[in-house]
Amino acid sequence: MTKDTALVIFTPSGKRGEVPVGTPVLTAARQLGVDLDSVCGGRGICSKCQVSPGVGQFPKHGVTVAEDALSDFNAVEARYDEKRGLKPGRRLGCQATIQSDVVIDVPPESQVHKQVVRKAAATREITMDPATRLYYVEVREPDMHEPTGDLQRLREALTRDWGVENVAASPRLLARLQGVLRKGNWAVTAAIWHDHRGGRPILVDLWPGYSEDRLYGLAIDLGSTTIAAHLCDLRNGQVLASSGLMNPQIRFGEDLMSRVSYAMMNPGGDAEMTEAVRAAMDTLAVDLAQEAEITPAQIVEATVVCNPVMHHLLLGIDPVELGQAPFALATSDPVNVPAGEFGLASINPEARGYLLPCIAGHVGADCAAVALSEEPYKSEDLVLICDVGTNAEILLGTKDRVLACSSPTGPAFEGAQISSGQRAAPGAIERIEIDPVTKDPRFRVIGSDLWSDDPGFAAAIAVTGVTGICGSGIIEAVAEMRLAGLLDPSGLIGSADQTGSARCIEDGRTQAYVIWDDSAEGGTVITVTQGDIRAIQLAKSALYAGARLLMDELEVDAVDRITLAGAFGAHISPKHAMVLGMIPDCEIDKVTSAGNAAGTGARIALCDISARARIETEVTRIQKVETAIEPRFQEHFIAANAIPHATDAFPHLPELPQVSFNTGGGDGGGRRRRRRG
Amino acid sequence: MTKDTALVIFTPSGKRGEVPVGTPVLTAARQLGVDLDSVCGGRGICSKCQVSPGVGQFPKHGVTVAEDALSDFNAVEARYDEKRGLKPGRRLGCQATIQSDVVIDVPPESQVHKQVVRKAAATREITMDPATRLYYVEVREPDMHEPTGDLQRLREALTRDWGVENVAASPRLLARLQGVLRKGNWAVTAAIWHDHRGGRPILVDLWPGYSEDRLYGLAIDLGSTTIAAHLCDLRNGQVLASSGLMNPQIRFGEDLMSRVSYAMMNPGGDAEMTEAVRAAMDTLAVDLAQEAEITPAQIVEATVVCNPVMHHLLLGIDPVELGQAPFALATSDPVNVPAGEFGLASINPEARGYLLPCIAGHVGADCAAVALSEEPYKSEDLVLICDVGTNAEILLGTKDRVLACSSPTGPAFEGAQISSGQRAAPGAIERIEIDPVTKDPRFRVIGSDLWSDDPGFAAAIAVTGVTGICGSGIIEAVAEMRLAGLLDPSGLIGSADQTGSARCIEDGRTQAYVIWDDSAEGGTVITVTQGDIRAIQLAKSALYAGARLLMDELEVDAVDRITLAGAFGAHISPKHAMVLGMIPDCEIDKVTSAGNAAGTGARIALCDISARARIETEVTRIQKVETAIEPRFQEHFIAANAIPHATDAFPHLPELPQVSFNTGGGDGGGRRRRRRG
Repeated sequence: MTKDTALVIFTPSGKRGEVPVGTPVLTAARQLGVDLDSVCGGRGICSKCQVSPGVGQFPKHGVTVAEDALSDFNAVEARYDEKRGLKPGRRLGCQATIQSDVVIDVPPESQVHKQVVRKAAATREITMDPATRLYYVEVREPDMHEPTGDLQRLREALTRDWGVENVAASPRLLARLQGVLRKGNWAVTAAIWHDHRGGRPILVDLWPGYSEDRLYGLAIDLGSTTIAAHLCDLRNGQVLASSGLMNPQIRFGEDLMSRVSYAMMNPGGDAEMTEAVRAAMDTLAVDLAQEAEITPAQIVEATVVCNPVMHHLLLGIDPVELGQAPFALATSDPVNVPAGEFGLASINPEARGYLLPCIAGHVGADCAAVALSEEPYKSEDLVLICDVGTNAEILLGTKDRVLACSSPTGPAFEGAQISSGQRAAPGAIERIEIDPVTKDPRFRVIGSDLWSDDPGFAAAIAVTGVTGICGSGIIEAVAEMRLAGLLDPSGLIGSADQTGSARCIEDGRTQAYVIWDDSAEGGTVITVTQGDIRAIQLAKSALYAGARLLMDELEVDAVDRITLAGAFGAHISPKHAMVLGMIPDCEIDKVTSAGNAAGTGARIALCDISARARIETEVTRIQKVETAIEPRFQEHFIAANAIPHATDAFPHLPELPQVSFNTGGGDGGGRRRRRRG
Repeated sequence: MTKDTALVIFTPSGKRGEVPVGTPVLTAARQLGVDLDSVCGGRGICSKCQVSPGVGQFPKHGVTVAEDALSDFNAVEARYDEKRGLKPGRRLGCQATIQSDVVIDVPPESQVHKQVVRKAAATREITMDPATRLYYVEVREPDMHEPTGDLQRLREALTRDWGVENVAASPRLLARLQGVLRKGNWAVTAAIWHDHRGGRPILVDLWPGYSEDRLYGLAIDLGSTTIAAHLCDLRNGQVLASSGLMNPQIRFGEDLMSRVSYAMMNPGGDAEMTEAVRAAMDTLAVDLAQEAEITPAQIVEATVVCNPVMHHLLLGIDPVELGQAPFALATSDPVNVPAGEFGLASINPEARGYLLPCIAGHVGADCAAVALSEEPYKSEDLVLICDVGTNAEILLGTKDRVLACSSPTGPAFEGAQISSGQRAAPGAIERIEIDPVTKDPRFRVIGSDLWSDDPGFAAAIAVTGVTGICGSGIIEAVAEMRLAGLLDPSGLIGSADQTGSARCIEDGRTQAYVIWDDSAEGGTVITVTQGDIRAIQLAKSALYAGARLLMDELEVDAVDRITLAGAFGAHISPKHAMVLGMIPDCEIDKVTSAGNAAGTGARIALCDISARARIETEVTRIQKVETAIEPRFQEHFIAANAIPHATDAFPHLPELPQVSFNTGGGDGGGRRRRRRG
């Protein structure tokens, strides 16, 4: 007796059900809510619905699958196989029909909501659920006797085949619509953007016939000092190109408050800064498209994360209110507008832009992005997340409660305001060790895996040279100097006499430590000066004070784990960060790096529309603590100046040399003495 | 015994109810659903809620009102009265509280949905329910400890006080928001646009504190030949200024099909035409603002009605598809976009633009606007509506069924392609009578009420002169020539010999009739030539054939009434239109003029958001008949060439002279004879 229905089981989801014999696999998948992709709507064109049927015993599922459980290869599949090649064992889900009980595997690339491994933090995945998707439709031809517009018939097809209703189209796209429909002989592929808050879907682009055109998006981390962007394939989340450039606003002020001052003192100054950053972002977009060999018009979305001041300047809003209490934002909501409205003029003219929500006047979309990437609101243990940049974004909490603050660390951690500082680029010192006995350094520069005392180092750096120290390098240098006894707890560099190292040289009225001296060959001299130490001390004290303030608020003295993030966060050595006193005490193996978590958050928001909804909800639950008006912040800041500032607060720290180079008057004393002499 | 509630009766609505003693009148009105205006939300600032309480016996309502039924004048009312003056008997509804049973009249100017008398058609009214309205709110100040953006707190206030939810604001307005809120000390007046289809409300403008700033809108009738616009006060519908100018696209082609051809033959030709018409509309907007002494930024809305070709060219869509069957529109839906997207660049940058829906590829938003104004879909008797322009829009029907078509009449009715033709402007002949005995004309020109044979006429026209004939003038001239026996039924002008009038002169190979000859004084000579007659014959045949086609479709031979509309529709004499055979037979007093009905429709859509919803529904019910491919249209067109074409079809017509000036060969015969001679 033949049944007139058959059992179908889909893996890996395990979804199962009875369907009438003869049901196409794609139809069965849709009925059972199985995540099986299709762009052409089952017309055998797109091949996105490929599946792998099983044959034989499936004890786990309690079913035996016959060889002819699916219909034979049909003409559409044969043609597709001939033209483009179908992997062995694969079938087109829209063509193969179910004949008897069957187990069908949906390979990862056929799932709409693919899980994509994140490059920077390999342990987590991004769900692909982009706002902009392709839809292939066949549109009814116009009929003089039932006059409707071409747009109305396109909408009708999108609703009928895809359930996409009431698509909006700009006059610009309307101007192209009629030509494309006729060129495609009434078949078109439409790129449609979906609003995760339930607004109307928007037509973004349109191609005649079935188009394999890829859609791309930009995830932009707009920092005070650097602008970094990833160009992502919106189908699979793959990063095709990444690039960064300096924020051109630096010429108006190195840190945020000096830019706010610039806007206050110079009428039209905010507009100047807006124009500068918009132009830079647009340049970056064009460069990335060129690098990835796509046209800028293929970029149909951009997500941006940034701090509140950059947020306002990007949108063309004078940031003056952010410079004074109560630090009122013009808007804290996510901003969802045509990307052209914040200056991305060269990408697709219909491209959408999404700025993540801000948490408060000092805690911006960048912090929201870090939260989206690191998910403290899901953490079982108490996690401290420090996103280190010109401003540090700090999050502390568990799934029950999350606090956030921002701390003005200044640009020192990014290599600015450091005498030999530079951005992370080939030739920059990124790792350093100082021998505690000889007080001599060995180091590595970006662009080579060799240490400076390895054979062949000179040859390896022949092209780049040794050009300076980047952010992670200066942190290691200062920590290593302290470990080697070249620096006392107050941050003073010892003299050659005091340290016994000829590398400690007089530098004006203070000391400096020579890391590299190639001057005999006409090359660079790289030193760490007393001024550099002071800049790093200010920066690390600010970071530490912010973290402590949140800990006070939660009434805790220790955290379970620490995540360091930032454009250069992946490169900070946990040990050195702790020696420096940048972060509260923690077991050293519980301090990890998350890389550019804000950038990752931007990428997640770009690839996954549901992540936008998620972070918009989570930010309303994050409690913001204002550092700028909190007296305890100042107290923590001052107390955190020493390296480390209170050894009993750091039980996990290695023992540090007991040295003191203060000769009575500190730095100032040295100056006075010289004047007398 | 004193009651603790009181009966309140509002007139003219008759709404009544018991309210607690002490309830402010405004509150009572809101509770009872009475239409009582308020912009400031009951703060005694705006005075929009003025009411007139009654005193004494109200037998109709069964109530006696005591003198102290309302609370005494309070300080707010006294101050308002002192500063701005309150009409006698008036109270501020938000201040006066109800003490005992009372009858309260809401004067028309205190109603939100005011009824405004339409200027052009005094018998009907427009309900004021504009999309853009003012709201006064007091916004919560920012609090560092509960950080939300200024926009979020503005939204909160709008929802709390007005039930307006989730207002969208552009980055451009966000850039102004913070300054305005602080300047107004956290009180602002917001202009908010409402989408009648349920989309998000949009913030359009913002002023510090309570603002009496008026909002204005443009109702634009974008014709093939002329662009006419009204500037309206969105509070009361009053037309502050009206103006028109020639459509600059005329240089690309006089009629629509020649413009479509221009676009087909000249790459970029459509863009040229788009730019020309947009620039003209923007100029018109600026001129109207200047005339009304407002700033262009106070114009916050524009509605546009036009035929499909103008519709596409305005939106930047190549109209080529409209030039060939099946005449597919790019979109038939209403277009609801920022007004800047169709070129109104000088008005408020946030202003919204609304194009009425199109009915079909040849029956556009102008026809929808005529329907909105004349409401054939509500008519008890069979009405024929002819909107006469370069294209005629024709509607025929009753409340049960409405048909529509468009007929290419050409520009002759607008005075173009007529030898002495001109647009309706001072100096143009608009009325004419020809004495059937003397065959001499008397006429009136625009700008003077005197007839040409009245004493003082020469002085009255001394400034303008007699410059030409406008559309309504040429219709009367041709009809009067036929009535006076100067023209035979075929449309031939008789010679001086045939007619006995020296005003019939030879004009090349045909005859012309001299209406005015001021050449002795160096002035103009105004004649009606045989070519003019032919042009009018073509135009009127097209109009008649369109009307007949719809009558055929409804299987009727007569209509109950006829409405003539058009930019110059108000000026067409029904009698002359019937003598000419422009329109089907009808009792003469059932032929009325509706003026510029399309323009009126644009004005209704501007002032009344619910009218937009209404016409969007009605257009889907209007059945469109395509003239361009209908063989019967050609038949009717040819049959309608004579003046009148079949006397028995026009029982209501005066008797016409039995003349024939055909000397064997028609026009051509005349030509041949001359050649021989």
